[in-house]
Amino acid sequence: MTWASIDLNADLGEGFGHWRLTDDEGLLSVVTSANVACGFHAGDAVTMRRVCDLAAGRGVRIGAQVSYRDLAGFGRRSMDVPADELAAETAYQIGALAVFARAAGSRVSYVKPHGALYNRVVHDEEQAAAVVEGVLLSGERLPVLGLPGSKLHTMAEKAGLPTVTEAFADRAYTAQGTLVPRGESGAVISDPAAVVERSVSMARFGVVTARCGRSVGVRARSLCLHGDTPGAVALARRIRGELESVGVRVQAFV
Amino acid sequence: MTWASIDLNADLGEGFGHWRLTDDEGLLSVVTSANVACGFHAGDAVTMRRVCDLAAGRGVRIGAQVSYRDLAGFGRRSMDVPADELAAETAYQIGALAVFARAAGSRVSYVKPHGALYNRVVHDEEQAAAVVEGVLLSGERLPVLGLPGSKLHTMAEKAGLPTVTEAFADRAYTAQGTLVPRGESGAVISDPAAVVERSVSMARFGVVTARCGRSVGVRARSLCLHGDTPGAVALARRIRGELESVGVRVQAFV
Amino acid sequence: MTWASIDLNADLGEGFGHWRLTDDEGLLSVVTSANVACGFHAGDAVTMRRVCDLAAGRGVRIGAQVSYRDLAGFGRRSMDVPADELAAETAYQIGALAVFARAAGSRVSYVKPHGALYNRVVHDEEQAAAVVEGVLLSGERLPVLGLPGSKLHTMAEKAGLPTVTEAFADRAYTAQGTLVPRGESGAVISDPAAVVERSVSMARFGVVTARCGRSVGVRARSLCLHGDTPGAVALARRIRGELESVGVRVQAFV
Amino acid sequence: MTWASIDLNADLGEGFGHWRLTDDEGLLSVVTSANVACGFHAGDAVTMRRVCDLAAGRGVRIGAQVSYRDLAGFGRRSMDVPADELAAETAYQIGALAVFARAAGSRVSYVKPHGALYNRVVHDEEQAAAVVEGVLLSGERLPVLGLPGSKLHTMAEKAGLPTVTEAFADRAYTAQGTLVPRGESGAVISDPAAVVERSVSMARFGVVTARCGRSVGVRARSLCLHGDTPGAVALARRIRGELESVGVRVQAFV
Repeated sequence: MTWASIDLNADLGEGFGHWRLTDDEGLLSVVTSANVACGFHAGDAVTMRRVCDLAAGRGVRIGAQVSYRDLAGFGRRSMDVPADELAAETAYQIGALAVFARAAGSRVSYVKPHGALYNRVVHDEEQAAAVVEGVLLSGERLPVLGLPGSKLHTMAEKAGLPTVTEAFADRAYTAQGTLVPRGESGAVISDPAAVVERSVSMARFGVVTARCGRSVGVRARSLCLHGDTPGAVALARRIRGELESVGVRVQAFV
Repeated sequence: MTWASIDLNADLGEGFGHWRLTDDEGLLSVVTSANVACGFHAGDAVTMRRVCDLAAGRGVRIGAQVSYRDLAGFGRRSMDVPADELAAETAYQIGALAVFARAAGSRVSYVKPHGALYNRVVHDEEQAAAVVEGVLLSGERLPVLGLPGSKLHTMAEKAGLPTVTEAFADRAYTAQGTLVPRGESGAVISDPAAVVERSVSMARFGVVTARCGRSVGVRARSLCLHGDTPGAVALARRIRGELESVGVRVQAFV
Repeated sequence: MTWASIDLNADLGEGFGHWRLTDDEGLLSVVTSANVACGFHAGDAVTMRRVCDLAAGRGVRIGAQVSYRDLAGFGRRSMDVPADELAAETAYQIGALAVFARAAGSRVSYVKPHGALYNRVVHDEEQAAAVVEGVLLSGERLPVLGLPGSKLHTMAEKAGLPTVTEAFADRAYTAQGTLVPRGESGAVISDPAAVVERSVSMARFGVVTARCGRSVGVRARSLCLHGDTPGAVALARRIRGELESVGVRVQAFV
Repeated sequence: MTWASIDLNADLGEGFGHWRLTDDEGLLSVVTSANVACGFHAGDAVTMRRVCDLAAGRGVRIGAQVSYRDLAGFGRRSMDVPADELAAETAYQIGALAVFARAAGSRVSYVKPHGALYNRVVHDEEQAAAVVEGVLLSGERLPVLGLPGSKLHTMAEKAGLPTVTEAFADRAYTAQGTLVPRGESGAVISDPAAVVERSVSMARFGVVTARCGRSVGVRARSLCLHGDTPGAVALARRIRGELESVGVRVQAFV
């Protein structure tokens, strides 16, 4: 079976104040969905506004990349945030971003947790439920982007929110189709040709070669590209080009 | 001439995390408009949500109390924030609060700058224009609460935004009808009876006794009560009771 | 066996900017060791300076109450901070406080982790080692205040740092002599008479009545009093008075 | 008259958490004094430690680059911070940095205000005095790096602190020997050859060509190089090479 189409998403606007991280303009020329930092791990108000303007101008969907409140740790440190705080902080971030999305003539189309929160809501039911409550608080039944089988998706479905599955272009998978943890060797695929090949394989056939060498099914509606490394934009372009050349339609999921 | 009605506003939700400042429930039983802190000088997401729920439950209007980004200084330190940052940060705060106001079945009904920003936009045209731009960015033509004759009101009117004038129950006025600066002696009226008497006089006749002893016209659609002192709620109640007993209708301006 | 003397410690300076929490002057008239917040969970520079001045003036020892960087959560949320960050942040906080202690004619005499970090280093060896590394970085072999048997004490001893054991005046203990977790019912003793009685029993005999009703040994060189509740100072005074009246010498451990 | 020697200083460690800004290793191979960010406008604890280790290893002097508390604005926004806060925050930053300098086998050798604070203490006597008070609080009579004729230097001299004058390699000067404000055209010299020539002229003869074309005296014991632009390290190396080739000794002022 092949997917008629695939969405390409990337993290954007991940600077803060004087600091820049991502090549927002470059990535926005490739991806179909922009995960915009909302100020808690990165993303000041000026940057949020600019990224929303750029994304809307290119027809790229705007997603709220919600995070723990942790500028110093870039949202990469797991935190035991009580459920009511996490829910309210999720809603706060969505609301703040929504202003700039609407001012740009667009809207917040989905929500994707960032960093440590993303990893935690794979298995932490309480925090997953809190993120879902935060989405509901925001007043719109926004799709939630996440790992297939994650608690985040379970809780979102329970609450009646649409879920969108995601795979990673440059991450190794186990024979069970789960991500090889970052700490382990070979967790991140650095060879550009391999990243391109795997992207096409996942998008076209829903299959990727696991670390053990066997094929494993990884079906996802969206493919996450990383934008914070040198050559990231060039690689993203190459992936998109390859996908289109084999007939995969690259388009947003909403 | 008398005003048919007066609005009573107060700053609410001015805690942060573990810290509390205002008796939010007590004040919400008195005022008709709640200036809710939006996270930049005070006001975490949980507090914002709770205050919005309480305000909506009592029919009290919710206003965005926007501020410089300055938790350490409680927004009381004037800052040379560039116009594009101030505009975007104003919009960010309004958007974040709007989520909780809507979730509570209400909406953000107005905007009032806080602390040093409030004082600065009395005379600083660039920052006043930036706040107004932030309100426009938020997508709704929200009324702007401020001092009569302030640059904030001038710029708001230019932009077609409604303006709402404000007077202070416990502040001394000059013969010109401007506030006696906080640094000067007698700037704050501490005698409760005097505060009540002045409130009634301003609400009923648009007149107050200036520091020099003469009467001066201070017409305002809203009267600001302070909530961060012991006895604040009791005094607020007394003011409201006195106003109503002399036939002034206490009601929100929107 | 009885202790010839006991130290009384309390958390101080736990406000931030405009917010106040503890009655610093009141507590400093009772305790012998002041755990001063260093800016990461609470404690701005002005407050740190003032508390150090007050403590030094009264001969109260100054300790660095180091914390996760978490103003919004008051340091009460466990965080997966990498060891190198935690070590450096611990040293940063000690160094910042040391300036004010020395300016007051005193010095930082010990280190005590705060909140979630305190609980985590009971069992988390990596974070315990990081805190110890931070203390070593600070350049002085400062005693580390913590729970008997904690990883923090194990790692401190390995590194050759002095350790000081601590008990809690108002917390319930299990039959094994460990603290009843805060979440469980009866974890905090609220009856002042009971708190006083237990304090005396622990200081004098190293024994307290466990939750199950049996006596259990809880030997500690320092007794922690809480300062963030109404009546805290009065209770602290009563505890100290009772201790002294039965012949326990109340004095700092250094 | 020529100076026997000149100090070269640059801002270092101006990242925060995940964000990097300056090529610290590159600059440390050129400059003799490192202005290390202390966490208020930039500079997390891990970065401070690393930069101190690198600087000490190369014999580069470590200075505390103290700033307003303003991560979002990179310390570039003038703030009306009350004197007691500014003094305490200055001391706090020096103390925090001192830990890492000492752990690296060095010490904090001087203080230099950053950004908006640097510009403000040129003329704002109250804030200048507050910075000086903060230096005194730190317990060492540290030299203060600043503009000749600045209030900072006036107040430092009054307090008996050493002062060190500074010139800028890439800034235009007026006929009066003051800096052309950044907003004005031509304020920053971008031609590398001109920057090198001016550096040599100031170091060797204490003279530079003013914007009007005339020579003006700019005598300074230290020359500030900027490190946050592409090519900064290469330019710094070229300046140092040229200075040494004409016989100017490049060495720290302490």
